[in-house]
Amino acid sequence: MSQFPDTVRIVEVGPRDGLQNERAHVPTAAKIELIDRLSATGLKTIEATSFVSPKWIPQLADAAEVYAGIGRRPGVAYPVLVPNETGYDRARAVGVEEIAVFTAASEAFNRRNINASIDESLQRFAPVLARACADGVRVRGYVSTVLGCPYQGEVPLADVVRVAQALYDMGCYEISLGDTIGVGTPLKARAMLRAVAAAMPVGALAIHFHDTYGQALANILACLEEGVAVVDAAVAGTGGCPYARGASGNVASEDVVYMLHGMGIDTGIDLQALSETGRWLAALLGVETGSRFGRATAPAGESAAAAVE
Amino acid sequence: MSQFPDTVRIVEVGPRDGLQNERAHVPTAAKIELIDRLSATGLKTIEATSFVSPKWIPQLADAAEVYAGIGRRPGVAYPVLVPNETGYDRARAVGVEEIAVFTAASEAFNRRNINASIDESLQRFAPVLARACADGVRVRGYVSTVLGCPYQGEVPLADVVRVAQALYDMGCYEISLGDTIGVGTPLKARAMLRAVAAAMPVGALAIHFHDTYGQALANILACLEEGVAVVDAAVAGTGGCPYARGASGNVASEDVVYMLHGMGIDTGIDLQALSETGRWLAALLGVETGSRFGRATAPAGESAAAAVE
Repeated sequence: MSQFPDTVRIVEVGPRDGLQNERAHVPTAAKIELIDRLSATGLKTIEATSFVSPKWIPQLADAAEVYAGIGRRPGVAYPVLVPNETGYDRARAVGVEEIAVFTAASEAFNRRNINASIDESLQRFAPVLARACADGVRVRGYVSTVLGCPYQGEVPLADVVRVAQALYDMGCYEISLGDTIGVGTPLKARAMLRAVAAAMPVGALAIHFHDTYGQALANILACLEEGVAVVDAAVAGTGGCPYARGASGNVASEDVVYMLHGMGIDTGIDLQALSETGRWLAALLGVETGSRFGRATAPAGESAAAAVE
Repeated sequence: MSQFPDTVRIVEVGPRDGLQNERAHVPTAAKIELIDRLSATGLKTIEATSFVSPKWIPQLADAAEVYAGIGRRPGVAYPVLVPNETGYDRARAVGVEEIAVFTAASEAFNRRNINASIDESLQRFAPVLARACADGVRVRGYVSTVLGCPYQGEVPLADVVRVAQALYDMGCYEISLGDTIGVGTPLKARAMLRAVAAAMPVGALAIHFHDTYGQALANILACLEEGVAVVDAAVAGTGGCPYARGASGNVASEDVVYMLHGMGIDTGIDLQALSETGRWLAALLGVETGSRFGRATAPAGESAAAAVE
C-alpha cells in the first residue's frame, strides 16, 4: 500500500507568504521575533522575507532589516524570495545564503501578473540562477498555479512539468509545487505530483498547497503517499487568498504537523512551541488563528477557550 | 493502488448534529425550511432531528413538529435520533420510518455521559431495536469516540469493533463510526476502519468525522481508499465542538462534496444548491460558514466576498 516517508521537512512560509497577504501592519521587530520564535521550534527551513520591490509588496519593504535582525541558527535555512538581479543584490548585501525564485505554470497568470510569458519569466531568472550558482547560494524554485489558475482555469500538466523541469535544470535544488488558489483535490494533486516526479527526482520536490477550498491536508496526504517529503505551510494559516477575500490561505503548519506526527512521521518540530507561536502571531495580527489545531487547543480564557463540559 | 468507490452517499447531519450544538435559537419553521432545502439538493439521507428528551437537548424539543412539517421526498431517508423507547414512541407517532441509535466506544465516555457501561448502553437499545425490526423501521447505529475520548484518551480498537459489531448484530443496517472530538489522523482512521471492516461488510459502514483538528477530509480520504462509501457531514460545518469551545465541529458537507466530485466520485448532489443552503443557514445562525468552499465561493458583497485582484 502506502509508501509514506519516515520524516518530512516543513518549509515554514508564514513570515513571507503569510505576512505579505495580511492586512495588519507588522513592525519589523515583530517580524524578527516571529522568525526567532519559529527558529526555536525545530523547523529546519524558514522563508524569512522577500526582496521583491517594495512598490509591489510594501508589507515586506523592510526585508533587509528583518534578515539582518534575525538570529540565524546553525542547521536552519532562511531562504528569501528574489525576483530579479536587483533583489539578488539587495539580498546578498545582507548575507543571504539561500534564495527562492518563482514563476507560474499558467500562461495567463504569468501574462497578467508579470506581463511575460512562461518562457520569458524563466529567461529573467537565468542570470539570477547563474550568479547564485557561482556564489554558492542555494536556490529554491516555486511553480505556482499547478492545480488551477484564477484566469485560465485548468492548467495543463505538461506546462507544470515543463516549468518545474526548467527550474530544476537551471539549478534549483528543490521545486515547490504550489496550488496557489487551493482548488486542487487529492487525485488531481497526486496525478500532478506523479507527472512532475517522472521528470525529476521526487526528493527534489516540495508541495505548497493553499487551503482555500479546505482540501490542503487531503491533498498533502495524497502526495505524501507518492513519496514527497517536503511540505510548505504557514504558522496560524496566515496569508489569506488574494483571489477570494475572507477565504483561507496557506495550510496551517500546526495542522500539517499534527497530521504527520499522528501518522508516525517525524518532523523534528515541537508542536506545542509551534502552536504557541501561531497563537502569538494571530494575536499580533488581530485575527483568529487559521489553525484548527490552534483553535482546538487554545487555553481557557482565549477566544477559542477549551472546556470540557 | 487506491480502490476509491465510484459513488458516495452523503448523510447530511446538519439539522440534527449541527443544530443541537449551535447556540442560536432556530425557529421550527427555519428547521423545516433547512431540511426542505437540503432535500432539493440531491441528498439521499438527511438526519432530521432527535427525539432525545428535551431536558437534555432543548434545541431539538420541537422534533415532532419539525418531522411533521417537512416535505418528505420519495427516495430520501429522514432518520431521527432515538435514545430509548419513549423517544421511539414519540418518533413513531409522527410517522418516522428510520431511526438512529448511538453509543460510545469509550467506557469512560459512556459512564460520564449516560452513567452506564458500554454493555449497559447496548442493553438499553435492545428493546428499541427489537421493536424497530418488528415495525419495519430501519435503524442506523452510531459509535462515537472511535478515535479518541475526551475523558480516557485512547480508545482500544477492540472496543470500537465490539460496539460496532454489537449494533450490527442487533439489526442496524449501517454503522456510523464517529471521531467525536476530531483527534484522529489518517493512518489511525484507516486502521480503525480496517479493524471494523474485518468484522462486518465495509458496505455497512459510514464515517462521521469532526474537523476539530482540521483532519476530517484527510481522514475521509484515507478511509475512502479502504472502500467506505458513506460519509456523514453537516452543511456549513455546523455543530461546533462541546469539548473545545470555538473549535470546528462536523466536517462541512460542501467541502466533502467538492473533494469527492474533484476525485470523479459521484454523490448525486448539486454542490451549488448545497452551498447556497449552507450560506443561508450560516446567515440564519449569525455565524461565518464553517465551509471553506462556502467562504471561497461566496458572492461579492457577502462577508467573504470573492474578488479577483
